[in-house]
Amino acid sequence: MSAPTVAPRRRTNSRGRQLDPLALLEHLPADLDLELLRRLRDRSVVTHRDLPRAAVIELCRLAAHMEASDVASFHPLDGKLVITAFFEASTRTRLSFESAVARLDGKLLSVPDARVTGVAKGETLQDIGEMFNGYGDLVVMRHPQTEALDQILTGLDLPLINAGNGSGEHPTQALVDWYALLKWRPSLADSEPPEDQRIHLGVVGTPGAMRAVKSFIFMALAFAPAIRKITVVSEMADPFGADLHEAIERTSIPVEVIHDIGDELPDLDVVYMNSIALLGDSYKQLDTRYRITTGSALKPETVIMHPLARREELDVSLDDSVHNLYFAQAAGAVYVRQALLVCLLGRVHRLPFFD
Amino acid sequence: MSAPTVAPRRRTNSRGRQLDPLALLEHLPADLDLELLRRLRDRSVVTHRDLPRAAVIELCRLAAHMEASDVASFHPLDGKLVITAFFEASTRTRLSFESAVARLDGKLLSVPDARVTGVAKGETLQDIGEMFNGYGDLVVMRHPQTEALDQILTGLDLPLINAGNGSGEHPTQALVDWYALLKWRPSLADSEPPEDQRIHLGVVGTPGAMRAVKSFIFMALAFAPAIRKITVVSEMADPFGADLHEAIERTSIPVEVIHDIGDELPDLDVVYMNSIALLGDSYKQLDTRYRITTGSALKPETVIMHPLARREELDVSLDDSVHNLYFAQAAGAVYVRQALLVCLLGRVHRLPFFD
Amino acid sequence: MSAPTVAPRRRTNSRGRQLDPLALLEHLPADLDLELLRRLRDRSVVTHRDLPRAAVIELCRLAAHMEASDVASFHPLDGKLVITAFFEASTRTRLSFESAVARLDGKLLSVPDARVTGVAKGETLQDIGEMFNGYGDLVVMRHPQTEALDQILTGLDLPLINAGNGSGEHPTQALVDWYALLKWRPSLADSEPPEDQRIHLGVVGTPGAMRAVKSFIFMALAFAPAIRKITVVSEMADPFGADLHEAIERTSIPVEVIHDIGDELPDLDVVYMNSIALLGDSYKQLDTRYRITTGSALKPETVIMHPLARREELDVSLDDSVHNLYFAQAAGAVYVRQALLVCLLGRVHRLPFFD
Repeated sequence: MSAPTVAPRRRTNSRGRQLDPLALLEHLPADLDLELLRRLRDRSVVTHRDLPRAAVIELCRLAAHMEASDVASFHPLDGKLVITAFFEASTRTRLSFESAVARLDGKLLSVPDARVTGVAKGETLQDIGEMFNGYGDLVVMRHPQTEALDQILTGLDLPLINAGNGSGEHPTQALVDWYALLKWRPSLADSEPPEDQRIHLGVVGTPGAMRAVKSFIFMALAFAPAIRKITVVSEMADPFGADLHEAIERTSIPVEVIHDIGDELPDLDVVYMNSIALLGDSYKQLDTRYRITTGSALKPETVIMHPLARREELDVSLDDSVHNLYFAQAAGAVYVRQALLVCLLGRVHRLPFFD
Repeated sequence: MSAPTVAPRRRTNSRGRQLDPLALLEHLPADLDLELLRRLRDRSVVTHRDLPRAAVIELCRLAAHMEASDVASFHPLDGKLVITAFFEASTRTRLSFESAVARLDGKLLSVPDARVTGVAKGETLQDIGEMFNGYGDLVVMRHPQTEALDQILTGLDLPLINAGNGSGEHPTQALVDWYALLKWRPSLADSEPPEDQRIHLGVVGTPGAMRAVKSFIFMALAFAPAIRKITVVSEMADPFGADLHEAIERTSIPVEVIHDIGDELPDLDVVYMNSIALLGDSYKQLDTRYRITTGSALKPETVIMHPLARREELDVSLDDSVHNLYFAQAAGAVYVRQALLVCLLGRVHRLPFFD
Repeated sequence: MSAPTVAPRRRTNSRGRQLDPLALLEHLPADLDLELLRRLRDRSVVTHRDLPRAAVIELCRLAAHMEASDVASFHPLDGKLVITAFFEASTRTRLSFESAVARLDGKLLSVPDARVTGVAKGETLQDIGEMFNGYGDLVVMRHPQTEALDQILTGLDLPLINAGNGSGEHPTQALVDWYALLKWRPSLADSEPPEDQRIHLGVVGTPGAMRAVKSFIFMALAFAPAIRKITVVSEMADPFGADLHEAIERTSIPVEVIHDIGDELPDLDVVYMNSIALLGDSYKQLDTRYRITTGSALKPETVIMHPLARREELDVSLDDSVHNLYFAQAAGAVYVRQALLVCLLGRVHRLPFFD
């Protein structure tokens, strides 16, 4: 692999733990698997199944290269047109995709909310998919209804990135999450991580109703050797839903559901939180019993993740602590999405990381 | 005319009848009328009168050249700034204009809906027009009120494209429609088409209240030699309105109004449908008596057009049939708008189609 | 200073008084103060205090150079990404910033209104600021609440331009206003303007409740030698608020408050109007007693300014008169904002105006 030929640039979180993309690259110094990355061309990313473990690792390594270098001068997405279709309001996800596209010199068509669309006149998602075929090269879609993906894919011929569908999935958020984890502890990518590096993962939330949590746990199951145990903190007896339940049945990872975060907190290495439960069309805020503050019984080295936006469950008193991985997690989102877009749009060869 | 120097690119509809831009170019092989296209510079396109027959044919031929080639590398709109001001919500029309601009390397200022504008604070369209003078090079405007065009033109010095004004007109939709018709049957552009090529055109809708239908029929009247008869299917006794009524009086084309589509359907060559009737500020859905499905008594070669979005009047069972011209019609919209923008913005000379 | 090397371009108002950027440049022919402009790099512009008199003059001179030349071919903002975050609706201000960025080849992430953001889910501005750190290079923000600026600055590391915060300030509007005044009468920039050039400034409005008026008067106080008197026309006994009141106490300029514009109108050289009073979250229209028309007792050479949008207080009968400076004022907005963005983003050296 050729060394990056351009000056590294600073772009990280202002507070909390800092993550270094070079840590991941030094732990896994082999050349990028160009064939694997090229095979992603024209693919859609709809669920966690579209991002198996090997693809996650290579995409995260590619993202680390992009974070450590300045690739703008290579214009990787020059001439490519990405449609961001957000039928459900979002700033964070939409802007991180749009920033990724703009930084790589791609172009954008933006649908910031459903009210400005023909949907208000009764247009079907199938017809909208057919329309998008002629207008762009890739679609990033968020929609409040789980079944919206199947509907648009009936008409759409372009690659589609699912940026959240109802209580379905949010696979690129899981990719963002694992990019943070792999920079934080690169040995999690090993096939046999050292015993003392394996993590007890606490997840606060209801995966069956929370798409980001669901995709994150699905992806975690693919990293089984790295995970000592998963503890889900939820008020529901079975918080998983059918698909995830089945996947958990097949894994060797011990998975436990508890109802009070305090019981296991002192043993957790990673706490993954989420504030938003999508129940029907309304948002339900988590009970404040599930709240974490600087007063919680965390091990000194425990890190907290959160896909954000947060509410009271994650106290701002933690922002300046070493537990705060969530700001670094968020700051990595643009690079992960850049890596994915470059692959899906068939522009890997424009990057300077290959001989 | 020099041959296109760049590789052709695929960009068409996924289902229904496919249209080939080369069919039009081979039927009319003469050099493009550069002088005619250049005279469009700095012009506005407000009604069908701004697009006479000769301009329609040349713009469609230019669009066909652009559809058959890849002109992005010539950066035809480099340095030009287009304002898309949609005071009435639309995705399809706004995105097709924005895609056209972005593909040609122009820049965009987007006003996706009226609620984000100073209009909410009582600002007049005249003042908004004066504002736009300093901000961009061309304005594409949609507005729910018919008289909005006259108001903004009082202040605006830039070329304006009317993308729909109340129950007024939508002239570039008519251009999109005729681009599809001329690719489908290029002899319609002849001054004396063969008798068996002339069409019986059925129009389902009320032109006086539906701007897209109105502009389409006005443009059809300019192609009189190509049209055997026009049959309008409407529940109203006089569906035309004063202007169109007068134009019909002057034409040699037989024009008939009927109340039930079934009566004439077996004789129609082209059926033009539309679902949305703008009555005041509300939308009125067509009676389902005017619905077409695969069970309707269509001739095998009849084609159906629709500016979309559709509702129940155009059944999805037709999507995979050879009657479906509407998806190809929609797919051509970006090229027609590219051709028009390049002319109005004085950038025809950047294209590679002239010696 | 090297002469502009590119062709001048026309871009001005269609009606009212025309302003010539060369008038300012010929009155102040010295080289631009490159050191002063470079020191603005990475700075935020939150209040009038961030734009002291010397900076205003240099930014206006830089804007005049940019208005007189065509600098697009130097791509001054190439690779820079500006986030326009308008949590309060605005077309005029947002589009003038976006036009400025696009014309200089920068890229944009646009948040056209608050409803499309995570704010609807309870996200804090502090977290939004942290998010923006990873997504762009500079933020332009408007917000209906005065205290929003302090909140976002807790999380934001990027330079911020305040495009209006509640009843707080709108400092770049004041820069736009003074750019118009300095083109109109360049001697206002002198340390000792000739006595007959000094102006009696009438301000119709309540600075304490109107951010644009407040910032304009603060900036006027910095040009004390140029101002003979300030007369504020307001229905309130003390229309200033604490901060401005204190600044007025320290100035040598006579400041008077009157309740009827007619009393002083015949003596005013400049009338600054504003229609919008932000009281809480609602807009209050000025009493029509404060209205100016062609029938008002204006001196022949008096000019009227208005940040627009206007309502009835500024009659359209004035649009074609020589009193109309407001359209020229508006037309200059893009150049002032270009000058500011180029400085804050550290790209002054890309411009061709320095040896």
